[in-house]
Amino acid sequence: MECVKKRASHSGVCGRYKMDLYLQIRKMGINMKTKITELLGIEYPIIQGGMAWVAEYHLAAAVSEAGGLGIIGAGGAPASFVREQIQKAKELTKKPFGVNVMLMNPEADEIAKVVVEEGVKVVTTGAGNPGKYMAMWKEAGIKVIPVVASVGLAKMMERAGADAVVAEGTESGGHIGSATTMTLVPQVVDAVSIPVIAAGGIADGRGFAAAMMLGADAVQMGTRFLVAKECTVHENYKQKVIAAKDIDSAVTGMSNGHPVRQIRNKLTREYLQLEKEGASLEEMEKLTLGSLRKAVVEGDVVTGTIMAGQIAGMVSKEQTCKEMIEEIMSEAEKLLKL
Amino acid sequence: MECVKKRASHSGVCGRYKMDLYLQIRKMGINMKTKITELLGIEYPIIQGGMAWVAEYHLAAAVSEAGGLGIIGAGGAPASFVREQIQKAKELTKKPFGVNVMLMNPEADEIAKVVVEEGVKVVTTGAGNPGKYMAMWKEAGIKVIPVVASVGLAKMMERAGADAVVAEGTESGGHIGSATTMTLVPQVVDAVSIPVIAAGGIADGRGFAAAMMLGADAVQMGTRFLVAKECTVHENYKQKVIAAKDIDSAVTGMSNGHPVRQIRNKLTREYLQLEKEGASLEEMEKLTLGSLRKAVVEGDVVTGTIMAGQIAGMVSKEQTCKEMIEEIMSEAEKLLKL
Repeated sequence: MECVKKRASHSGVCGRYKMDLYLQIRKMGINMKTKITELLGIEYPIIQGGMAWVAEYHLAAAVSEAGGLGIIGAGGAPASFVREQIQKAKELTKKPFGVNVMLMNPEADEIAKVVVEEGVKVVTTGAGNPGKYMAMWKEAGIKVIPVVASVGLAKMMERAGADAVVAEGTESGGHIGSATTMTLVPQVVDAVSIPVIAAGGIADGRGFAAAMMLGADAVQMGTRFLVAKECTVHENYKQKVIAAKDIDSAVTGMSNGHPVRQIRNKLTREYLQLEKEGASLEEMEKLTLGSLRKAVVEGDVVTGTIMAGQIAGMVSKEQTCKEMIEEIMSEAEKLLKL
Repeated sequence: MECVKKRASHSGVCGRYKMDLYLQIRKMGINMKTKITELLGIEYPIIQGGMAWVAEYHLAAAVSEAGGLGIIGAGGAPASFVREQIQKAKELTKKPFGVNVMLMNPEADEIAKVVVEEGVKVVTTGAGNPGKYMAMWKEAGIKVIPVVASVGLAKMMERAGADAVVAEGTESGGHIGSATTMTLVPQVVDAVSIPVIAAGGIADGRGFAAAMMLGADAVQMGTRFLVAKECTVHENYKQKVIAAKDIDSAVTGMSNGHPVRQIRNKLTREYLQLEKEGASLEEMEKLTLGSLRKAVVEGDVVTGTIMAGQIAGMVSKEQTCKEMIEEIMSEAEKLLKL
């Protein structure tokens, strides 16, 4: 984002009118190089969230092909499935893509090896501390980017050798922390020296530009990519995201320490009622066993879990990943006066 | 924020080098005029939050003198006290300032008249619908700016005749809604034609610039002004805000529909425990009766309520309001390339 310095160091032709000059400067300044595009070898600083069940190889490959960084979400899937996903993505794109390793996955150890064996370039991690895989991944040249929800965790990940962190605000879909993007991102930026990727509540050029102002070097988006044409999520799921208003998400699990943001439906009402009644964790888990798969694969948006961020209220149409990324970059270019 | 257009329409001198040209354009572009500075007749688009007990006349006058818009928070105070506050502020500044009318105040009707009688220029409102005072206020030439936490309420306020709205994210201190600043602001901007002031999680030039990118015409800040030298809040309260980390705030009252963000202490632990136990509203209210006053006036930060936003984690020192505003505008100028 150091465009001022960059512009000053490039010599340019001098036109007769301010307008010409301005346009020339503007044209020369178009440059979306950031620490993250350099680190990952991508064109635009837009990373797709590694959503479990949702972020499979079609979506990841499409985002990477469009110039961002696609991510395959390993979620709770077996290692063999993750390997297959990586291989299929490689058939669709020669550009770099990543894998999100959910550290509570029972096969996390094997998945950690699979990403090395398959030559994956970038790994993001969620739900824990990837410390024990760090040496192996770094040796394989993998860029390791943990997702964090607090300054403390960001600092810990930097010490552990992370190449960057995703600072994810509570407005995100799925498993969340408490700090919002607006407050978390600048505080993480101040606390670490590695690049910071902002996530949570970002779905257009305005959110992208805002994240840059907060000091981020890239954004990660989940909810908008959920409704991408290349995303294989059930159409019912996409339509729920598109129909959602600004305050249509609910957070379940606040009382049991596993907060999850999703779109309100019969399931969230029942879950919140159980929480109010002080039900046991077992009772609550019975309700959500396989419920994300049910929504994503079967399109059951009544008793399934429709994970999505608050910004679903602004997501209004299906587009290709390329259309989304180009639209966002074009809006951001105007706002940031690149 | 339409600086591109403005620049293009100003003719300028053409220097020999790109750097000169860039600096000239940059200099000419410095302009913090927005719809809100025009509407309110202020120098900088920074408004101070009308925090109950905290936002009294010293603070309000100091913010207005520094070029922002100071606000006296009527909170639950009697009308006579509010009148006195307004009169004292007028002794300290000739610049415009506002009053925040908390609509659940039992003397709201009288306070509504006091602001007219005292010639107050701007009224912000919280905790309800100011519809019934709108005609009287508008006739008196008062600019009416309700604080809203959802798109629906913003639209309703526009229809009722509001001049602008404050879109306040859940990261704010005190009584809160659920949508975050990052998601709420652009959605409100898209939904209404009146100017939008962003609030929640904003405390420096980065947050200011981010809010502008999201489409806001001004920001409202509470937590940073809490520790202003001119703020008469007890020193213990200020020190708790300064010491707070990114995830040190708690939200009480989620279970009873009156969520309040504050800094964690013995009080929040006890309150949250009562909520967990399903205690009655009466039991909970007993705990918080007069607790904000206790913290603000007496400096009891153990059993008092220390209302503050999540951005307290970034607020690190006492300064005058002038120092704060100048620092923020200077940071923002660089980021926004004004």
